[in-house]
Amino acid sequence: MLNKFELDEFIKIALKEDIALGDITTDSLIDNNSVSNAVYISKDEGIIAGLFVSERVFKILDEEVQFVKKVEDGDWVKKGDIIAEIKGSANALLKAERTSLNYLQLLSGIATKTNLFVEQLKGLNARVVDTRKTTPGLRALEKYAVKIGGGSNHRYCLSDGVLIKDNHIKAAGGIKAAIEKVRENIPHTIKIEVETESLEQVKEALEAKAEIIMLDNMTLEQMKEAVILINKKAVVEASGNVNLNTIRKIAETGVDIISVGELTHTVKAFDISMRFL
Amino acid sequence: MLNKFELDEFIKIALKEDIALGDITTDSLIDNNSVSNAVYISKDEGIIAGLFVSERVFKILDEEVQFVKKVEDGDWVKKGDIIAEIKGSANALLKAERTSLNYLQLLSGIATKTNLFVEQLKGLNARVVDTRKTTPGLRALEKYAVKIGGGSNHRYCLSDGVLIKDNHIKAAGGIKAAIEKVRENIPHTIKIEVETESLEQVKEALEAKAEIIMLDNMTLEQMKEAVILINKKAVVEASGNVNLNTIRKIAETGVDIISVGELTHTVKAFDISMRFL
Amino acid sequence: MLNKFELDEFIKIALKEDIALGDITTDSLIDNNSVSNAVYISKDEGIIAGLFVSERVFKILDEEVQFVKKVEDGDWVKKGDIIAEIKGSANALLKAERTSLNYLQLLSGIATKTNLFVEQLKGLNARVVDTRKTTPGLRALEKYAVKIGGGSNHRYCLSDGVLIKDNHIKAAGGIKAAIEKVRENIPHTIKIEVETESLEQVKEALEAKAEIIMLDNMTLEQMKEAVILINKKAVVEASGNVNLNTIRKIAETGVDIISVGELTHTVKAFDISMRFL
Amino acid sequence: MLNKFELDEFIKIALKEDIALGDITTDSLIDNNSVSNAVYISKDEGIIAGLFVSERVFKILDEEVQFVKKVEDGDWVKKGDIIAEIKGSANALLKAERTSLNYLQLLSGIATKTNLFVEQLKGLNARVVDTRKTTPGLRALEKYAVKIGGGSNHRYCLSDGVLIKDNHIKAAGGIKAAIEKVRENIPHTIKIEVETESLEQVKEALEAKAEIIMLDNMTLEQMKEAVILINKKAVVEASGNVNLNTIRKIAETGVDIISVGELTHTVKAFDISMRFL
Amino acid sequence: MLNKFELDEFIKIALKEDIALGDITTDSLIDNNSVSNAVYISKDEGIIAGLFVSERVFKILDEEVQFVKKVEDGDWVKKGDIIAEIKGSANALLKAERTSLNYLQLLSGIATKTNLFVEQLKGLNARVVDTRKTTPGLRALEKYAVKIGGGSNHRYCLSDGVLIKDNHIKAAGGIKAAIEKVRENIPHTIKIEVETESLEQVKEALEAKAEIIMLDNMTLEQMKEAVILINKKAVVEASGNVNLNTIRKIAETGVDIISVGELTHTVKAFDISMRFL
Amino acid sequence: MLNKFELDEFIKIALKEDIALGDITTDSLIDNNSVSNAVYISKDEGIIAGLFVSERVFKILDEEVQFVKKVEDGDWVKKGDIIAEIKGSANALLKAERTSLNYLQLLSGIATKTNLFVEQLKGLNARVVDTRKTTPGLRALEKYAVKIGGGSNHRYCLSDGVLIKDNHIKAAGGIKAAIEKVRENIPHTIKIEVETESLEQVKEALEAKAEIIMLDNMTLEQMKEAVILINKKAVVEASGNVNLNTIRKIAETGVDIISVGELTHTVKAFDISMRFL
Repeated sequence: MLNKFELDEFIKIALKEDIALGDITTDSLIDNNSVSNAVYISKDEGIIAGLFVSERVFKILDEEVQFVKKVEDGDWVKKGDIIAEIKGSANALLKAERTSLNYLQLLSGIATKTNLFVEQLKGLNARVVDTRKTTPGLRALEKYAVKIGGGSNHRYCLSDGVLIKDNHIKAAGGIKAAIEKVRENIPHTIKIEVETESLEQVKEALEAKAEIIMLDNMTLEQMKEAVILINKKAVVEASGNVNLNTIRKIAETGVDIISVGELTHTVKAFDISMRFL
Repeated sequence: MLNKFELDEFIKIALKEDIALGDITTDSLIDNNSVSNAVYISKDEGIIAGLFVSERVFKILDEEVQFVKKVEDGDWVKKGDIIAEIKGSANALLKAERTSLNYLQLLSGIATKTNLFVEQLKGLNARVVDTRKTTPGLRALEKYAVKIGGGSNHRYCLSDGVLIKDNHIKAAGGIKAAIEKVRENIPHTIKIEVETESLEQVKEALEAKAEIIMLDNMTLEQMKEAVILINKKAVVEASGNVNLNTIRKIAETGVDIISVGELTHTVKAFDISMRFL
Repeated sequence: MLNKFELDEFIKIALKEDIALGDITTDSLIDNNSVSNAVYISKDEGIIAGLFVSERVFKILDEEVQFVKKVEDGDWVKKGDIIAEIKGSANALLKAERTSLNYLQLLSGIATKTNLFVEQLKGLNARVVDTRKTTPGLRALEKYAVKIGGGSNHRYCLSDGVLIKDNHIKAAGGIKAAIEKVRENIPHTIKIEVETESLEQVKEALEAKAEIIMLDNMTLEQMKEAVILINKKAVVEASGNVNLNTIRKIAETGVDIISVGELTHTVKAFDISMRFL
Repeated sequence: MLNKFELDEFIKIALKEDIALGDITTDSLIDNNSVSNAVYISKDEGIIAGLFVSERVFKILDEEVQFVKKVEDGDWVKKGDIIAEIKGSANALLKAERTSLNYLQLLSGIATKTNLFVEQLKGLNARVVDTRKTTPGLRALEKYAVKIGGGSNHRYCLSDGVLIKDNHIKAAGGIKAAIEKVRENIPHTIKIEVETESLEQVKEALEAKAEIIMLDNMTLEQMKEAVILINKKAVVEASGNVNLNTIRKIAETGVDIISVGELTHTVKAFDISMRFL
Repeated sequence: MLNKFELDEFIKIALKEDIALGDITTDSLIDNNSVSNAVYISKDEGIIAGLFVSERVFKILDEEVQFVKKVEDGDWVKKGDIIAEIKGSANALLKAERTSLNYLQLLSGIATKTNLFVEQLKGLNARVVDTRKTTPGLRALEKYAVKIGGGSNHRYCLSDGVLIKDNHIKAAGGIKAAIEKVRENIPHTIKIEVETESLEQVKEALEAKAEIIMLDNMTLEQMKEAVILINKKAVVEASGNVNLNTIRKIAETGVDIISVGELTHTVKAFDISMRFL
Repeated sequence: MLNKFELDEFIKIALKEDIALGDITTDSLIDNNSVSNAVYISKDEGIIAGLFVSERVFKILDEEVQFVKKVEDGDWVKKGDIIAEIKGSANALLKAERTSLNYLQLLSGIATKTNLFVEQLKGLNARVVDTRKTTPGLRALEKYAVKIGGGSNHRYCLSDGVLIKDNHIKAAGGIKAAIEKVRENIPHTIKIEVETESLEQVKEALEAKAEIIMLDNMTLEQMKEAVILINKKAVVEASGNVNLNTIRKIAETGVDIISVGELTHTVKAFDISMRFL
């Protein structure tokens, strides 16, 4: 998770977008000493994520604002539920509202969507994981929301995980050579994952002692065979064409990990509004 | 539109997320002098937006990369269409791919969605406009994508447009007082918009010479009456409950502007992949 | 107005200029626990602006410093008046003094100068407005000082207001074409201003429904005619050759707005000194 | 002088103020491929300073812009003189114009004002130097302009020069103690200056081997006596109440250095305009 | 490895330290058009690392400077060897020299020191790895230098590797519980390492399927036993009291990895000087 | 010394290196409300420097952490001495530990090393000073540590001190010409230092009224003669081949200043560890 001071840096970028030079309506009309009470009220159903971000938006504008959470990240809320009570300078509340909600609605949308996928796997062992198909500038928060929704994270970025793809294999002259060359170069703390598109490649990866084998766009039949072939000697990840209709069947093939791009790239904002009391 | 140097600042934040310390797979396997050819190929149907952003991602990593657009922002592409040809250091191509696509897929998704709304209004005069419900850190690019999709922009932020809402009206002691107080304080170059929830309020706003009157969550019937009442003396904006099923009927009431939150808050990534040749 | 966190970013740049690596005199001689009392004393006559900036300079160096305002922004002070009392670490006071005063003297100078212009218009309706001829990096603060001095603001920058000039008109093929093309592209919340140099152009602008018409470097006679021609159908702005000797006569022509470059580009620092007690 | 990369950082801050999100007029009307020729033309008389800054503003927006200087920094220009020819993208020229001129007009104003002071000292040996009363964020450039105008610089900031004032002396328990304590703490490369308000203090400073003695707000008579007393054993600086009427008489007392706050705190912008050809 | 644009950000911080406002000696004496030839000459013996950093320092000040490497990173040089030839603006060469050398001398010092440790392990399989005991702000470069010297890297930071220590074990209630809880929370791409201080703990870690077991401050005897116990079921890392006298014996116990803090925390600058021709 | 807000900026860069995205071990295992007590314990002997930096690292992560110094910067500690007690969130303590220690160990190493040199000069008047051979990004802190160790500082950077070297002399056409040209260009507050390599050059420098004369790589014999020649008319600095074996003899030649590169370029980290209670 992001440190508080880094989170603040991102929020300030967002606040500059929305209130670069103040709120000319509010600054003209609202007395600086005026105090308001407001609530965040759910107009949707699902899982809330990102309350600490939402809170920081207010605090950055005015440390005095009180933001009292009525639910916690990960809680399921229904339409009409009160998510938080916010009290403080009316000026700050009006200025922070939109940015604060933009974060909360996006992150809660991701958590809720992730949860739908996770629910499909009830009783099975496979993990739902995210991908690098995140919104530029928001990866840390989006990956956090995936976890809140019950999912797990894949590597954070290109620097902290290895995924050997087709082009890498060609350049190295085969899966075995690629794995050996990578192993020599990376910290001993990182596992090596290889993307495979056929059972032939799965075998090669296995022989080369890949620690994770990705089955890319394989049929259910192929995946089953791969799982048998691999036989727990590597972690098995399924990737490609995963959606709410297909995920359970994919999991039933016995794979350990299923990565789902749409957890973060295609999200419906969770509807929340701020109501002044 | 963002200046190039500001765009670069945003892209660098995104690149740091994804390749903070390089790509440990590629750096281990791909020769620094190796050159690749690749194409961006559409796996979806719709409008492309953000090619210049996508291109800058490569250029920031390596000025030598050639990015040849085969379509322009605003063009409609079909599955299988080549969007761009990219040639240069294999290392740079592999590192920039994901970040470049993350931008392009989001912005093309917004343009495509906007276009669906715009298409509903064929033959009518109403404008589809965006809102401030954008992704934190991406507002300028997202509003650009709305325009590429055929939509128009609402105010950029709280500093460059006035929208007098319920709380502002209460604080000022009525619509008339609010408008006068704001007018006194803002540059003469900015119009004043008032949010109204009843025909009574529309009348008040009209009498107070609001330049834009927003009809918030009104029924079609109310909107029709409001349009007649206003009679071109102010710009009329409809807001609330706008979706692909309702937008045409709303436009037929005669309103000038229809603002649609989901243009930017609920977007399906446009599917594009990079294929190495 | 700038948000506090953005203001702090600017002040830190200024502090780095002046105390990059501390104050080698003070750090050598003044005990860290030593406390001082000081006052800001006016050595000039006019309007004070920017006390909150001046205060933040001290607070950024040392949160414990107490800065008690004895006057408010907008107040008229005379020579010898106490503007503020400052109490706290002698070290912080000595280090912050110059930067704090540099802001306060500039902004009070602008407010005082603006007020001279505003005073000329007593009994008339015209507004005195600023221009984009501000000091690089200080626009938001300088425009604030103009308002404190009784003036109004023109557009903040090129992004939040339209001003169609000669080159734009030529490129578009006439005033009408220019206005229409701009109207299509900008948010519905922004008025369109056109710069005119002759009554002929005023007529064209009027026919094309420009919302603001700037009379650039016109004679008083021309301005009078223009005002009659326009007849309240657009806001009328006078620009060029405005100084303390000419402004009242310009206002008497009936124009609504008079823009004055020297409010911000030619300023006499307001003389204030810090006296240790 | 600032390095180019630091200068660029400052200019980008200024450009963000003025074209944060582009120029909505120009972007709507001017074709991206349109090319313009323009000149900077003097509407004032005096010394030009800051052409390299002015040029960088254009280059940062568009590296292709050609900026051909027709005069050099330090040259004296008359009304109507061409200062530079600028050729390139019409879009870039229109966007950069105001920011580029804001720098050039301020810096040329400072150089011109400095030169008036320097001219007063013809035939005498005293140096005119600046102070720390500069515009926040612009010190390096303003001190550069002072040199271009024929003046010299005082210390850049509190970190690179020592000036022992009243409060320092009290805290240390006398001038001698203060000088000794400072000498012990600072690099051997920096001279020690002491502010004196009486001949008594001048003597003390002299005995304590101050390397520079500032005569603060002394009468001409006192200054003459001080100069004789000091007798070349220290550099003598006059400060306080210096203006165009008094500077020559002050110099005639035999002081080496005269510091003038208004060189940078009270400046008339040098009138320059950009004319499109 | 750092991307070029991130490297530049770090170098600019270093350059600001050394030439914040130019080089007052060089700027006073050296003509801007003067060109110099210089060489980097080794006054030491060992391995060079960081030439690309050293080069960027010059290029950031002046893109025209030519920096021709006569050796490559990783090459062994002797006293008197020419490391690079540098040609360009005398002004840029004089300004960049110190910062450029400060990087090169530190990184070559690290590479050379690392190499001494690596040489001790000739014929054995153990890897020499670095730690997080690096210079604040220089970790990426220092870890690069370790690799150039023949060493390997441990995890980059707390975010990309797991190391379960004493406090973590206590908080979790035992090694097994700790490993399971961590495994649940982290990406499947990262191995889990546990720090052990006794053979008892080694057994526990083994049973809990730790993927890496650190033997912290154990005797050679204990390490031998641990290696036998672990029997290739986990990677074995030795840590603590490692120096040039002990490392070979430690390696001979059969451990896979030996981490050495002093590779980066106690470094002798590699002596290199710039000679003008 | 660095201001607190600038120090924080540097520390944040270092913290981002180490806990960019949190500590995946600690975040998985340690309860957010868990509180720990720890001590910094010396495992080495020497002088502590940088406690305020070390403390800020904790505070930046968590303002609530209590950091109680048991010794002060400049104190001599022995093995086993408690340096500080730290109490607060276990999470913050575990995350900040390494970065905090990395600073403290480096700076205490520098202070301790400096002290060894200073001790060599007991009874003599010469000052030990640092050089610009510092770690990129850490100069202000490293120069602070030198002072804590009993040394003095040379100029901070190229902007605040003059050192005329061989190349400068050649470009100017002799020492006299160089000094005069520099004197004309720099503030009157800065002394001029000239590097000399022979007694001939010393004489020239003396005649040209250099305020500091550096004897570069001279023999003891030459230095003695130079000191006699200079006869207190300039400050005398010895430079080159200074180490613990040579420094006393150099000082005995009568030079005023001895600059020592290795104070900052070749440092042994001071061994300190954090022990949880």
